[in-house]
Amino acid sequence: MALTGKRLRAALLAGTLALAAAVPARAANDAEVKDFLLDNGMEVVVIPDHRAPIVTHMVWYKIGSADEPPGKSGIAHFFEHLMFKATANHAAGEFDRAVSEIGGSNNAFTSYDYTAFHETVAPSALEQMMGFEADRMRNLVLTDDVIKTERDVILEERRSRIDNNPQAVLDEEVDATLWQNQPYRIPVIGWMQEMEQLNRTDAKAFYDSYYRPNNAVLVVAGDVDSDAVKAMAERTYGKVARGPDLPPRIRPVEPEQNTKRTVTLTDARVSVPSFSTQWVVPSYHTAKPGEAEALDLLAEILGGDNRSRLYQQLVVKQGIASEAGASFQGTMLDATNFTVYGAPRGDARLSDVEAAVDAEIARIVKDGVTDDELERAKTRYVRSMIFARDKQDDMANMYGSTLATGGNVKDVEEWPDRIRKITAGEVKAAAARYLVLDHSTTGYLLPQQQAEN
Amino acid sequence: MALTGKRLRAALLAGTLALAAAVPARAANDAEVKDFLLDNGMEVVVIPDHRAPIVTHMVWYKIGSADEPPGKSGIAHFFEHLMFKATANHAAGEFDRAVSEIGGSNNAFTSYDYTAFHETVAPSALEQMMGFEADRMRNLVLTDDVIKTERDVILEERRSRIDNNPQAVLDEEVDATLWQNQPYRIPVIGWMQEMEQLNRTDAKAFYDSYYRPNNAVLVVAGDVDSDAVKAMAERTYGKVARGPDLPPRIRPVEPEQNTKRTVTLTDARVSVPSFSTQWVVPSYHTAKPGEAEALDLLAEILGGDNRSRLYQQLVVKQGIASEAGASFQGTMLDATNFTVYGAPRGDARLSDVEAAVDAEIARIVKDGVTDDELERAKTRYVRSMIFARDKQDDMANMYGSTLATGGNVKDVEEWPDRIRKITAGEVKAAAARYLVLDHSTTGYLLPQQQAEN
Repeated sequence: MALTGKRLRAALLAGTLALAAAVPARAANDAEVKDFLLDNGMEVVVIPDHRAPIVTHMVWYKIGSADEPPGKSGIAHFFEHLMFKATANHAAGEFDRAVSEIGGSNNAFTSYDYTAFHETVAPSALEQMMGFEADRMRNLVLTDDVIKTERDVILEERRSRIDNNPQAVLDEEVDATLWQNQPYRIPVIGWMQEMEQLNRTDAKAFYDSYYRPNNAVLVVAGDVDSDAVKAMAERTYGKVARGPDLPPRIRPVEPEQNTKRTVTLTDARVSVPSFSTQWVVPSYHTAKPGEAEALDLLAEILGGDNRSRLYQQLVVKQGIASEAGASFQGTMLDATNFTVYGAPRGDARLSDVEAAVDAEIARIVKDGVTDDELERAKTRYVRSMIFARDKQDDMANMYGSTLATGGNVKDVEEWPDRIRKITAGEVKAAAARYLVLDHSTTGYLLPQQQAEN
Repeated sequence: MALTGKRLRAALLAGTLALAAAVPARAANDAEVKDFLLDNGMEVVVIPDHRAPIVTHMVWYKIGSADEPPGKSGIAHFFEHLMFKATANHAAGEFDRAVSEIGGSNNAFTSYDYTAFHETVAPSALEQMMGFEADRMRNLVLTDDVIKTERDVILEERRSRIDNNPQAVLDEEVDATLWQNQPYRIPVIGWMQEMEQLNRTDAKAFYDSYYRPNNAVLVVAGDVDSDAVKAMAERTYGKVARGPDLPPRIRPVEPEQNTKRTVTLTDARVSVPSFSTQWVVPSYHTAKPGEAEALDLLAEILGGDNRSRLYQQLVVKQGIASEAGASFQGTMLDATNFTVYGAPRGDARLSDVEAAVDAEIARIVKDGVTDDELERAKTRYVRSMIFARDKQDDMANMYGSTLATGGNVKDVEEWPDRIRKITAGEVKAAAARYLVLDHSTTGYLLPQQQAEN
């Protein structure tokens, strides 16, 4: 039912650019995006898209794993699961069945900064969806039995998705090594020994604090009219009482990194070695103007796709790598990470691939990017935006994730213009400032025999 | 005035064994150690030592940096500083002057699990000391001005002791890499960006929660009679109202470590390279019976002093190291660390030294220790105990640190017997269980040119 944060995160790592690029200045059909507040503080964004009789309905709660109390890791994701249980008005499974019966789809996901629930249905079912979502925002029935049963589910989820997967085990310890103070060091799914202890008291406190209309953003994209959406939202969500004001989301921040760190996992299940190097960099929410945009373009030019420097140099030209790339996770509330990665092909050694990646980084730090490749990177963004207009859920995701991490509708709409203004000098400066190997964190995933070389 | 946690920690790292060994089953003169509670919940330990007209007076608060709220790192140590400021009854500096005028000495220190204040004076001044300590337990005057001035002091302390010292900078990031969840990952002195934000509200909340008789242990060692101490304690500390009950000190615990981690600092100020490798191991408070004692003996045999395996093999026999050793920090509330370290001599390379240390670890894991060297290690403990009877402050420290980390007087008194019972098999089992290189964290301190090799 519910996606794990880890799965979401993997998707974000692979697809940040595609997602970030999925933002038209105006939505399809050029109808304006509308943004308003209900009286109880719930924010509503309506993105008209009339090409097909479909609507994407999402509720984003401004609560993620990075907001969890110490020792309670996993509670945000656990709570995402609990939201599919019985309420005072609906039996467990009734909401899901209602979606299935009308041929819709639904799911949910948890990340560091937010937890979101979404349904894709025919417009005629929108108000019914709102009714179900508004109901479970406050009326869940959290018995000890429900808690115990669902806790077993998340424990099993952790065993199968993390503990049985060497890459996932490594990723967790790399994250906890890169982040030494900021809560992104804690896995979204939680540490096993803390998940085992989560109880009804924890769940109830979490629900009462965070599942409130004044901590939620409703995003509706599709074949709807914003006035109609507003009226429906008032009839459903509008009936839910505002909760106590929440304090600002000020979390522990990362101290300056002065060292080069490595994390190595050697495992018999690994066949091809690989590495990834990460740096702490600002997100769109924490960066100075233009800096996050420059990091987005830097990731694109350095390793965004098959035309990028890393791919062209390592995979195509030198032929030493089976994969090589870079990514930047811009949509985070706090400082985020910039990543480069690679894996060898044929007889090449992992150290050869890493050295070649490092050489490309050194080159971009020293010489910067050309105006030509910068233009091409910007063009690729614009092209992917046009393409993305066809993806209603990508648009909804972009607005939701931006609004749930301290941004607003204007930030989304003006983003393409801000990208267009970035200069080659700004990209070079971002590379020089952040991609310092002596202050990086590298994870190595090695086959058993590799370690014995 | 106040020692930093870091300085204390360095002392503990170097001297754990000496301190742990400083525990007679009975104190000097064979007078019994007395342990009792005041009506307000304050615990009192009296260790008679009548050889000289001196008394060591210590108050241990069961509050350390590992108890700090998220984002408030440094508040425990900051508060130790604030305790030397004015109270409603005494001007700032009055307590210090009173100690000096009678030829005594005083100081304080903060660690992960406790904060302690101590004076060494003539017995006739004991009640005066108690009066001053009892006064500052509740009557500090915390103005914004006091906060601001003293905050500048701790910030400067951090700059000079940590940020200007490559070894200290490395140690911090190694700690935060070894500990990925447990709060020992946070430096006792605090992260700079959080120390800068500490304010009067934080200090007041901290004071009101933790500086209470029912969260304190009074240790008096010296030329005193326990009945007299009790009467004095009742006249001074006994007048301080009990505070609200504190919740159990249950902190986030460390997940299983599955990776080998390294942290490297390269700095032009470093002349000789060095490394240290750490593992997460149980403390006396968290270990199964006998396991912490076995780790203590393992550290002693592997690298406790000049007769240890590491010293004999690397420094004396191979002549490749200028230093090599091992240590175990047993007196901690939560899981603790076991450390091996070394530095090359002459033309030897750091990697040679590390390989030789690893070889000694592999040997002790595979073959264990001999009965003969185990006996010698135990004998050295006993001998150091006899020697330590002369050190009143070591005895007071041992009782205080044990009682502040979940132990009791009996734990201290029975410790030598528990050490005597450890078998060679238990030492080997501890080595095999914990000293796994694939699950270790190594810090490297390198001169600038070393990095370019």
